[in-house]
Amino acid sequence: MKVEIVAVGTELLLGQIPDTNSQWLGEQLAANGIGSHFHQHVGDNHERIVLAFRTALARSDAVIVCGGLGPTQDDITRAALAEVMNVPLDRDEEIVAKIRAMFGSRGRAMPENNLLQADVPRGAAIIPQTRGTAPGLICAVGLKVVYAVPGVPYEMTDMFERAILPDLLARQRDAGETSVITSRVLRTWGASESGLAEAVGERFEALAGDGRVTIAFLASGIEGIKVRLTARGDDAAHATSLLVDEESLVRTLIEEKLGDIIFGVDDETMEDAIATRMLARHETLAVAESITGGLIASRLVNIAGASTWFRGGVVSYASEVKFDLLGVPRGPVVSAEAAETMASGVRALLKSDVGLSVTGVAGPEEQDGQPAGTVFVGVAVGDVVEHVALRLPGDRPRIRSYSAISALDALRRTLDRLG
Amino acid sequence: MKVEIVAVGTELLLGQIPDTNSQWLGEQLAANGIGSHFHQHVGDNHERIVLAFRTALARSDAVIVCGGLGPTQDDITRAALAEVMNVPLDRDEEIVAKIRAMFGSRGRAMPENNLLQADVPRGAAIIPQTRGTAPGLICAVGLKVVYAVPGVPYEMTDMFERAILPDLLARQRDAGETSVITSRVLRTWGASESGLAEAVGERFEALAGDGRVTIAFLASGIEGIKVRLTARGDDAAHATSLLVDEESLVRTLIEEKLGDIIFGVDDETMEDAIATRMLARHETLAVAESITGGLIASRLVNIAGASTWFRGGVVSYASEVKFDLLGVPRGPVVSAEAAETMASGVRALLKSDVGLSVTGVAGPEEQDGQPAGTVFVGVAVGDVVEHVALRLPGDRPRIRSYSAISALDALRRTLDRLG
Repeated sequence: MKVEIVAVGTELLLGQIPDTNSQWLGEQLAANGIGSHFHQHVGDNHERIVLAFRTALARSDAVIVCGGLGPTQDDITRAALAEVMNVPLDRDEEIVAKIRAMFGSRGRAMPENNLLQADVPRGAAIIPQTRGTAPGLICAVGLKVVYAVPGVPYEMTDMFERAILPDLLARQRDAGETSVITSRVLRTWGASESGLAEAVGERFEALAGDGRVTIAFLASGIEGIKVRLTARGDDAAHATSLLVDEESLVRTLIEEKLGDIIFGVDDETMEDAIATRMLARHETLAVAESITGGLIASRLVNIAGASTWFRGGVVSYASEVKFDLLGVPRGPVVSAEAAETMASGVRALLKSDVGLSVTGVAGPEEQDGQPAGTVFVGVAVGDVVEHVALRLPGDRPRIRSYSAISALDALRRTLDRLG
Repeated sequence: MKVEIVAVGTELLLGQIPDTNSQWLGEQLAANGIGSHFHQHVGDNHERIVLAFRTALARSDAVIVCGGLGPTQDDITRAALAEVMNVPLDRDEEIVAKIRAMFGSRGRAMPENNLLQADVPRGAAIIPQTRGTAPGLICAVGLKVVYAVPGVPYEMTDMFERAILPDLLARQRDAGETSVITSRVLRTWGASESGLAEAVGERFEALAGDGRVTIAFLASGIEGIKVRLTARGDDAAHATSLLVDEESLVRTLIEEKLGDIIFGVDDETMEDAIATRMLARHETLAVAESITGGLIASRLVNIAGASTWFRGGVVSYASEVKFDLLGVPRGPVVSAEAAETMASGVRALLKSDVGLSVTGVAGPEEQDGQPAGTVFVGVAVGDVVEHVALRLPGDRPRIRSYSAISALDALRRTLDRLG
């Protein structure tokens, strides 16, 4: 059972919006052991949408189409589907009534173009809307199937979980496919891709041609490098067992050769690693940010329940804010001393147990005689006040993002060392 | 001249990383008047990569392949290209020497698998590396062409600008194609997609079938709704003239019916709109953030030169920080009064001219008797201290992101009103 994702919209081809739908759907399919070999993007053009659908149907068993179902005049997915199915479009009066009722309940007149959303290729099943106006469609094409859902992620994800995934799993069972794919990602910070490849090289070679377990490396930019382990088993228990054994082998190879660089698995972020440690210590954290300008704090508050351990922070972007609020002595503000004072200072100001700080040069110009990429992280935990000096590569946004994750990683390592 | 982008990597199909490369390339091609009708994603599998390349070559004139050129064992783009070209792979000793020299200059031994990167399909031209180890390739296939570049954005963008774009433009000239596409995006905050579609509906209808000018609506989630105007002219001057006229018409329709909702054009963000106004006023800004946890500050420091007008902020995530540092009276902290006090308080604490604050409930639980999505923005400019009350939809991250852009928009409107 191979599913192809086709995202429709000229804005995707022109690069005006990112295609987060294909990524999300790919994750969900993989998590449910459903394979996906291809994705496509195609613009709002009838002939080309039809060609993309036919290409997908020729090489995959099922197709999920996102986008082009809205109320505006460039939404033409319905007509393209009708052509591929070789059927006419019928206006569904039940959908018309629902759309009218939705506008009525908001006390608004319905723009007439909303009725386009009630057009249904003859023979298609409807996925009712719960979050918007355009219903989804399930269209049989021979023994294959095309699912069409709106491009709005909030509506798409709901329809996928409610209608598409159950249908796909039923089809997979009917086809007698029972092998299960499961995967796990080890997330690392501080090593190079070729360094990691070398560390697990012998294991990689040993697995070549095995077909059950694979290892891949994903350079994830500002989030470090991921090592993805994938196992295919006869059933869920078998796949999990293969995966657990492989993870243990690979973890040992990495830790022996590269040290404590694995900070999480799967969706665990560096801020999750911090949250776990702060909760275990029953302590609170405050941050003082210069070069990162609030990036560290905004990452930390993404963690549900952060209010139990995160007090807040100071964005000391102007030097005077460092002097006045954090007690940094007047003078150069990109230094180990400044970082340590900022960490102690924000801890005192916000009355937290732990202080974390970062100061540095985002560039392109140098500052205080230091080149772009010079970054100092300060950590204050109990009686320990220490710093880490970094030289980070890249342009302004990259240096800033690297600084944020490096600061969190420095805190993680200090907390683990102090125990 | 139609270019198809093929992004290679199982991690894309599994949704483990976003495909930022296709988006960036799409933007660059459009900006240079080069059409792109399809994108594909394909995994690290020889047969399927070959099929994706053949599919792309059948329906497009040129193909840009990103990824699969690295030093690890799952990098197999080179072999797939050789099959499509029907030629063998030769090891290029000049590239071998360069890779060895690069490792030597860093005082590191070269892992042997790096030599894979010196394999070149016979007859392909090399795009030399300046930022990494894997060179790019230019592969003629009949009268068409495949460009292969590494998937690392930092390396890909360099090769595109240095080698691929000049080659594509030369091919376009050789083919006698001279029509030029140009586009402009109007960025709005505060209107619905169907409301915008209705506002410009008559113009949209008038343009149907025109073929020279098109209007499209892009729901861009937390960044509002974009209205994209695209014009195709006989040359650059003609296309620009069509576009300028269209923009003037559409702006008037939107502003008459929906008010001052256009905050920028093209790449201009809401923080750009703030930067422009602060620079014009010769004033400084400080922010106090609760629900947004640093998100507003981290957006503001993305603007180059922010240090001339942005002093910094306080992330007052814990209520005590609001009481102790910002002077909010003890009691409920999600209120209009708290927002106004936070704005005045951070202005006094950081000695800025203007203060902006946001407090609210990200959910899922209610707080101070207020449901999730309740948000108050405070603005302090001169003698004016005022607030805006909002009720925002969505889950935690969405409410937080909407809060950040809504706060900046409230500041934009206050500054414009006060003049």
